Amino acid sequence: MTTAYNDLLDFVRETEALSQVAGRLGWDQETMMPDGAIDQRAEEQGAMAGVLHARRIDPRIGGWLEQAVAEDDVAAAQLRQIGRSFDRAARVPAQLATAIARETSRAHRTWAQARAEEDVAAFLPALARVLALKREEAQAIAGDADPYDAMLDDYEPDATAAQVSAMFGAMRPRLVALRDAVRARPAAPVLKGDFPEAAQMALSRELALAFGYDLGRGRIDKAVHPFSSGSGLDVRITTRTNPVDPFNCFYSTIHEVGHACYEQNIDRAYLLTPLGGGVSMGVHESQSRIYENQLGRSRAFTGWLFGRMRDTFGDIGIASEEDFFACVNGVTDGYIRTEADEVQYNLHVLLRFDLERALVSGDLTVDDLEAAWNDRFAADFGFAVDRPSHGVLQDVHWSEGLFGYFPTYALGNVYAGCLHAALRNAVPDLDADLARGDTGRATAWLRDNVQRHGGLYQPREVIARATGAAPSEGPLLDYLDAKFGAIYGV
Amino acid sequence: MTTAYNDLLDFVRETEALSQVAGRLGWDQETMMPDGAIDQRAEEQGAMAGVLHARRIDPRIGGWLEQAVAEDDVAAAQLRQIGRSFDRAARVPAQLATAIARETSRAHRTWAQARAEEDVAAFLPALARVLALKREEAQAIAGDADPYDAMLDDYEPDATAAQVSAMFGAMRPRLVALRDAVRARPAAPVLKGDFPEAAQMALSRELALAFGYDLGRGRIDKAVHPFSSGSGLDVRITTRTNPVDPFNCFYSTIHEVGHACYEQNIDRAYLLTPLGGGVSMGVHESQSRIYENQLGRSRAFTGWLFGRMRDTFGDIGIASEEDFFACVNGVTDGYIRTEADEVQYNLHVLLRFDLERALVSGDLTVDDLEAAWNDRFAADFGFAVDRPSHGVLQDVHWSEGLFGYFPTYALGNVYAGCLHAALRNAVPDLDADLARGDTGRATAWLRDNVQRHGGLYQPREVIARATGAAPSEGPLLDYLDAKFGAIYGV
Repeated sequence: MTTAYNDLLDFVRETEALSQVAGRLGWDQETMMPDGAIDQRAEEQGAMAGVLHARRIDPRIGGWLEQAVAEDDVAAAQLRQIGRSFDRAARVPAQLATAIARETSRAHRTWAQARAEEDVAAFLPALARVLALKREEAQAIAGDADPYDAMLDDYEPDATAAQVSAMFGAMRPRLVALRDAVRARPAAPVLKGDFPEAAQMALSRELALAFGYDLGRGRIDKAVHPFSSGSGLDVRITTRTNPVDPFNCFYSTIHEVGHACYEQNIDRAYLLTPLGGGVSMGVHESQSRIYENQLGRSRAFTGWLFGRMRDTFGDIGIASEEDFFACVNGVTDGYIRTEADEVQYNLHVLLRFDLERALVSGDLTVDDLEAAWNDRFAADFGFAVDRPSHGVLQDVHWSEGLFGYFPTYALGNVYAGCLHAALRNAVPDLDADLARGDTGRATAWLRDNVQRHGGLYQPREVIARATGAAPSEGPLLDYLDAKFGAIYGV
Repeated sequence: MTTAYNDLLDFVRETEALSQVAGRLGWDQETMMPDGAIDQRAEEQGAMAGVLHARRIDPRIGGWLEQAVAEDDVAAAQLRQIGRSFDRAARVPAQLATAIARETSRAHRTWAQARAEEDVAAFLPALARVLALKREEAQAIAGDADPYDAMLDDYEPDATAAQVSAMFGAMRPRLVALRDAVRARPAAPVLKGDFPEAAQMALSRELALAFGYDLGRGRIDKAVHPFSSGSGLDVRITTRTNPVDPFNCFYSTIHEVGHACYEQNIDRAYLLTPLGGGVSMGVHESQSRIYENQLGRSRAFTGWLFGRMRDTFGDIGIASEEDFFACVNGVTDGYIRTEADEVQYNLHVLLRFDLERALVSGDLTVDDLEAAWNDRFAADFGFAVDRPSHGVLQDVHWSEGLFGYFPTYALGNVYAGCLHAALRNAVPDLDADLARGDTGRATAWLRDNVQRHGGLYQPREVIARATGAAPSEGPLLDYLDAKFGAIYGV
């Protein structure tokens, strides 16, 4: 490789290392930090953001990019990723980047308190400040174009709001039809029993290992909103427990393990480079969702889990594997996106996508946000939001400035649908493994066809290479119709 | 204040915030980090050290220092501290600073493994690399002068090896005489009982609160080698448990609480500035030692602790407060510095001080270090080291490059002796409080006379202002003679 290329990669590798440090500071804030440290933490996060921003717009990068020669495909991909980040970052003033880091750190804590106290008004001034700063950032990047596209591009490169809207538009009628049909049927059986927190965490750990999470390069802690963080050799997940709903713990864990395994299984040669992380939030979510849903909530795997739960908790009020499968996949009225079933989950995402597009365009003000949320929720889900923590205050994302992030959840489901169809073709007898709690061949296929590539290919290209076809919503919708049609007899 | 002064302080405040982040990375490595992350962590620490070093030698600092006008004593102290750090840092090449951070991170892990496996040889190459880098750093700072003075100056500003040697020389005969007299007497009573780890941690937490530690701005975790880290609003401590020796846990906790309270009680106006941390390791250690020993191991406080231990653990094999006091202060043969009694502790420090001076000067090679340690230990303590983890591998410091740090432990004891004498004069009836487990007036006196000043005064000046006299070893030695004379009847 050329000297310019090597100098550039050395510089970028150090920046990636610093980015990992900043990310771990976020992990610490959610899991370990004492409450009284928040003001100091905001200064620390602001200082780290300033350092990272200065490095990302360092004028030497432009010089190196001009001179660097890519001698293979990997080098070409590195240069493409570096160039893309450099172009974006160079358009955002350092003071704005620092202000965003500081305000989101504060707004996040304000959100947590407002949510605990069911006090929307307490959160709105912080949200307004974050929104204004993020809009300023998007305008700096996009110029006169739709600022929402600039936001989306940060999480799902090359995606556009128009493209996403079209896909969501095609999904919605079939999802609503399936939801209406299922809701007309008798309710699924429900768990009854005693589910001590320590036992939930122990089985949660067993599930993490069963799905291939490497605890030698990770750890599991508790957080209000489960998340995965870090890359390479230090990828940590969090989960949560609910005394009457152990599935909340187990499927949060499996979901985050999907994210974590993506990061852990990327080619070691890409460590601390722009190719060393997941290529987009959508592809990331495809891994968490296929682990959680297509594998973790399958008839075969739940058959194994049924036995492990009875070993762990004794009588759980469910008589058979079939009933347990229906229980795990029960479609019920609920307020919370992260607890939603596969049928209704994407409707939660569509709601947020439309509201945040309206916030960003200015068609909706933060003062009207709660009413807009509640109206839309009642229209889409058929019943009313009963409290802010079940509605507009339920998600952490907007407090952290993550506008443009929500749609990637539904894109992830679409990609997971595509990958699942291809996986079943590649491993036709997979259910025999899953029925033993063995995900080895499934996760190996995902590792080899998706995860190991990291940022080597563009998001849609990753899916196309793994599946042999451009991503589309069809396989996901077909899978949902078949699965829930069978469970509910519709 | 002038613009130059304000610009300088803004810049320095951001640097301090980054320094807090780097420090918390060290905390994470000892308490939370998965083992497999160590190589990546070394890159992260190296990158943070590089950023910090670049900021500490930023040429703008020189310009600001020239133009800045101090309009009060606090500003003058800020400028003095900034100038001192700038002069030191500017002499150390960035690559050397990065190499030190990377090698010490690796050497630290090598040390932990070597200690676990009792394998000195496995540690020596790493130690040799760290020593060579630290000597290179000291020579860059000190030029032709004694490199050890440059190392010492990093932890105890304005102290010199010659000054420290003279003080240690005056202490040694009296300490040896007291130790010989005490060892000729019957052994102190020992604990017998059942000391579950969870109960140790619970009482440890109670002790932390009793000594004024603010858990709203801190937390307690476990680590192999207890430490305190952080400043201002996020000051964390670690402790450890030993199933047969709960005092190890309790007095480690009280010790670290002394450090932590110093950081927590500094004037809030100095937050994230050079005055916002403890002024020196010696003064820091004076706080941890006076909390641990002069207060925590006093006859009055141990009378209260005796009751709390019997409440917690039931029968502990001790019949009276007097016997418990003797038990807490038992002088026994032992290998481990951190577990040593007040009589012998400083002899451990003198051993390390002399060995590390010889390593730095080149009079001793790392290959001969173990033999030199064992010879010196046998001569000073009267029995032989039985394994490396009881000898040359017992302390973390050298693996982290902390040459010049050990003597500050004994300086801390000397300062604690001075402060304790002054405190007793100021609060003559203090024992009545301590006998109720109430340290409030003692810790308030230390807060007001020492802790709140942070880096405002030079180390020896802090002690002189609090006590009305220049620090000397006399009060400590008088206190030890009186206390252990009474316990052992010598």
